[in-house]
Amino acid sequence: MPRALDDLIEAFSSLPGIGRKSAARLAFFLLKRPVEDSRDIAQRMVKARESLKPCKICGNLADNVKCDICEDNSRDGSLICVVEEPSDVTAIESTGEYRGLYHVLGGALSPLDGIGPDDLNITALKKRIGDKPSEIILATNPTTEGEATASYLLSILSGKNVRITRIARGLPAGGSLEYADKNTLARALENRTKLDK
Amino acid sequence: MPRALDDLIEAFSSLPGIGRKSAARLAFFLLKRPVEDSRDIAQRMVKARESLKPCKICGNLADNVKCDICEDNSRDGSLICVVEEPSDVTAIESTGEYRGLYHVLGGALSPLDGIGPDDLNITALKKRIGDKPSEIILATNPTTEGEATASYLLSILSGKNVRITRIARGLPAGGSLEYADKNTLARALENRTKLDK
Repeated sequence: MPRALDDLIEAFSSLPGIGRKSAARLAFFLLKRPVEDSRDIAQRMVKARESLKPCKICGNLADNVKCDICEDNSRDGSLICVVEEPSDVTAIESTGEYRGLYHVLGGALSPLDGIGPDDLNITALKKRIGDKPSEIILATNPTTEGEATASYLLSILSGKNVRITRIARGLPAGGSLEYADKNTLARALENRTKLDK
Repeated sequence: MPRALDDLIEAFSSLPGIGRKSAARLAFFLLKRPVEDSRDIAQRMVKARESLKPCKICGNLADNVKCDICEDNSRDGSLICVVEEPSDVTAIESTGEYRGLYHVLGGALSPLDGIGPDDLNITALKKRIGDKPSEIILATNPTTEGEATASYLLSILSGKNVRITRIARGLPAGGSLEYADKNTLARALENRTKLDK
């Protein structure tokens, strides 16, 4: 195999969810397409990485000092939804159900990986409490690390005059009790909601 | 979502086997990595596409006038294995069972897609018969297009003084009769081989 092809397959293999076979398939695909296609994708990769920086306010990806959501005056500034990653903002935005602001931590507490509170975007969150939001929604992942992060944030924010909530954990839509793990089922029972007649 | 991110996700979505969700995952992954990673992959994409050209002899991908296989004097020049794409060469090479040369057609006959004999690397193949190979192995895919291409090659090469063979079609290793389609089963019966005691 020519060296340049091997180098490209190796590079694609380094991406998440792409094994050596998929990487080879992508490489051969690009080699069959016009050279402009490769140049275009390559340019978009570098441009995105170079031009997107964390928003000075919330830590979300921004092509300016502030991200589009922080810039949007029609959003509800009394709500701040705290998430781990910019991709979580995209996921919540895709529901179309949330009109408040965000705060992106840049990860979750993970002592095993050496990630402590100082490695996360927490100082800026504490400052934002001064803007007097009425509610902070802790929307970190329902994993060990995400739960630990939510507990930690609750402990350092609970003295402040703000309502702190956690996103609901329960059965996913379309899921079934039979296949749910016991932690999920226990949470679904614990967090049951009252039905109105 | 910032424009540069949207552009990148759209570019990744244009690749085979990558839907919008996987594309977003790749984009967010790169944005978390150092900028050098994006630059490196981008550069390898453009370099591979720009530096690899069809081998003048066989049509395989080459970083020189001739590909590594045609350059390799230890290969058996009496055998030419005809395949559709450079990726097929890689697949056959990975078996380690073949020591002859290749000929890459660059596709298969497909009247519906407007691909006729003149669009394939066939003239060069006819010339190579002058090198007096003892056998041409037709290893196009066992699809409608691949079979049609093999039939066509047989018809134009059969006047020449060369043995022409077709790769075996039958049950894949690890497969089962129960789940095989009827064409495959019919071929497996038709092409049965004699067992020696």
